[in-house]
Amino acid sequence: MTGMLTHSGDDGPGRRGCGPLIAPLSETMRPLRQQVFERVRASGLMPRVQVAKELGVSAASVTTITSELIELGLLEEVTVPRETDTGRGRPPVALGVRADAHLVVGMKLSDREHTAVLLDFAGNMLASEAVSREPAASDPATLLAASDALIDRVTAAAGVPRSAISAVGIGVPGFVDSPSGHVYWSSVLNVRGFDLARAASQRLGLPVTVDNDANLVALAELWFGAGRERADFAVVTIEHGLGMGLVLNHRLYRGGQGVGMELGHTKVQLDGALCRCGQRGCLEAYVADYALAREATTALNWIYKDGQSVQILLESLYDHAKAGNPAARSIFRRAGRYLAVGLANVVNLFDPALIILSGERMRYDYLYAADTLAEMENLVLATGRPLPPIEVHAWGDMLWAHGAAALALSSVTEATLAPPRELAAQ
Amino acid sequence: MTGMLTHSGDDGPGRRGCGPLIAPLSETMRPLRQQVFERVRASGLMPRVQVAKELGVSAASVTTITSELIELGLLEEVTVPRETDTGRGRPPVALGVRADAHLVVGMKLSDREHTAVLLDFAGNMLASEAVSREPAASDPATLLAASDALIDRVTAAAGVPRSAISAVGIGVPGFVDSPSGHVYWSSVLNVRGFDLARAASQRLGLPVTVDNDANLVALAELWFGAGRERADFAVVTIEHGLGMGLVLNHRLYRGGQGVGMELGHTKVQLDGALCRCGQRGCLEAYVADYALAREATTALNWIYKDGQSVQILLESLYDHAKAGNPAARSIFRRAGRYLAVGLANVVNLFDPALIILSGERMRYDYLYAADTLAEMENLVLATGRPLPPIEVHAWGDMLWAHGAAALALSSVTEATLAPPRELAAQ
Repeated sequence: MTGMLTHSGDDGPGRRGCGPLIAPLSETMRPLRQQVFERVRASGLMPRVQVAKELGVSAASVTTITSELIELGLLEEVTVPRETDTGRGRPPVALGVRADAHLVVGMKLSDREHTAVLLDFAGNMLASEAVSREPAASDPATLLAASDALIDRVTAAAGVPRSAISAVGIGVPGFVDSPSGHVYWSSVLNVRGFDLARAASQRLGLPVTVDNDANLVALAELWFGAGRERADFAVVTIEHGLGMGLVLNHRLYRGGQGVGMELGHTKVQLDGALCRCGQRGCLEAYVADYALAREATTALNWIYKDGQSVQILLESLYDHAKAGNPAARSIFRRAGRYLAVGLANVVNLFDPALIILSGERMRYDYLYAADTLAEMENLVLATGRPLPPIEVHAWGDMLWAHGAAALALSSVTEATLAPPRELAAQ
Repeated sequence: MTGMLTHSGDDGPGRRGCGPLIAPLSETMRPLRQQVFERVRASGLMPRVQVAKELGVSAASVTTITSELIELGLLEEVTVPRETDTGRGRPPVALGVRADAHLVVGMKLSDREHTAVLLDFAGNMLASEAVSREPAASDPATLLAASDALIDRVTAAAGVPRSAISAVGIGVPGFVDSPSGHVYWSSVLNVRGFDLARAASQRLGLPVTVDNDANLVALAELWFGAGRERADFAVVTIEHGLGMGLVLNHRLYRGGQGVGMELGHTKVQLDGALCRCGQRGCLEAYVADYALAREATTALNWIYKDGQSVQILLESLYDHAKAGNPAARSIFRRAGRYLAVGLANVVNLFDPALIILSGERMRYDYLYAADTLAEMENLVLATGRPLPPIEVHAWGDMLWAHGAAALALSSVTEATLAPPRELAAQ
């Protein structure tokens, strides 16, 4: 028992509370420089006047700060072609991220394959590589060797030396403390509690940041997708597991202590189905592909042959469902109902303006059929407001690797802009 | 079916995405002036140098801004007594909120009683009143008349005219859009969809803001309790319903569109117990007092007499449980297990550094007995980290009214400090 229970009595608040003179807070305001960079990066191209408007600061401040960011080599001026050139006046100039400022590698290490992309600082993909693997947890040395080989392959494909890479981002499924790069548990590792960022950094000879793979999908959307137009949205990923990422005010939110947003392991049934995390009743134990495969082998009396991939099994199950097999249909139907529970809980808690469903499994449209949406509507707070829009992005592992690259881009940006200079001096 | 489903194909991201030049965002940075005020307000008393340090801005900026805030009448300088007065040098000066800047009233309208407090701007309580009522949903006119009478009583008790009140905050259970003051559903109202803020403002002749009552408990903690020392925490309230409030970085988070954090209506069982919101499987349908009372009348074969209060029934149930009645114990035991599910889901999603359990029902210690914590530990991500501290604040309705007053204080502050002046000009 490690929980601490303290108890306050009935005296209540209301007295003039004089807190400690030195409050134990570590909040520092995000420097305006970083906010300016992020607004430009998020929008792709943005005129200075728009940056000033969106951040509520003066045009003079934005001019000063963008000059610094141009000097640091992070931003550049881009002349925007006019739709109808009147030939009069100066052509409009916008700010954009300088593509050749840095190169980064993002990789997703997963149960089935490892993927990597090499991006420039503006997010252009210069090379990508994928290596399939045996679906099983690895020891740390094997996983590090695989990431080392993947870096070699993707840099070779781009025709750049490893030394040209500024940073590496790595995504793994499971419970990850991103700030420290510590992996508490991951289905790709056969040990619990591993300092992946530190070990990978030593092995690769490059700065490495690590995050939960669902967070990386949210980061990919933030940098290259929905984040260009939205400040707040939720991403739910369905693959071998079920994950979630939340973007709040243009930033990825990882929970109060960095290991939150584990929607797949929220409990939707007391003493429910067994999850691969070892607990019972987790949402992903009803929705993820291993949950469907488990039911397929049971209900359809199939024998799961050693080495047979879950993908093949699920494709077969899907074909049976489409052909009208009642047991196969019931498996997808139940998974869809539980997905509705999960999505309704996301709405009831986060009230997002947009939900993005992401992952290869979204090809199984039973999961998000009209039935699922109808069920979800029955489970969402009855306010009379419409459900939030739900977009389905059926992108593959390359998207996840893009998210890992966005993580690397973030770390490069933060390292360049830190330590925060005084706002008032700008 | 109101959900919108859109589908993106397999082309994926990676192109240089040039977003729209004018992004449809409404983000403006929180003005530094407001941040300075909030840091001082949260800490009780704070020296200028500490404000500068915590916000990462220059001492000169803080001096300028605090002069403005003193001129606006919101802050004042307070001489801090030294523990050992050396008699040399100037005594240290800290900033504090000016108590007589404004008076506000906060009230909680609930199923059982209406409560109100009258506070000064520093949070000192000048008067409080409580009026018990028949536990039933009211029509809007009755509810407005009750709040009008309550304002009369609490201003009379404080010996101030109604015209001395700057703002009123009202908390009600249910689904509330705080920015607009619209109540989608509340157990205290017999209609759905009511513009409570507007109607109450007309009736009372004062500016009125409205919020969900659990959010108000979080606000009370933010202004007068845990918020003095913490930037981030979660509050879970258990009373007639089960609610949640989340404080992120010194601010109440209400979800992406303002009606989030409805933990009590997250679904923990497909086709589960009936909730008073009309849906099935809501967490509160297993934990809130009406859920326990429902089971008590069934399992113990008690007849629920008209007019008999839920409180009396629950006290009796609690006495039976303490005396060893197995059915009574099993009712609390199951409620405790479901509470563990709810708290574990809070941890798995929000990974908070602190959870505060609040509400009168916390007197029933079965709900948070060692069993509950042990169950919770089994349901929380197995990272090996300790559970977050769980504090039990068994305060009554007066705390909720304090939260409503904090809402009124927030609205006064924001009105005084808005529209945001340009950061660069400060």
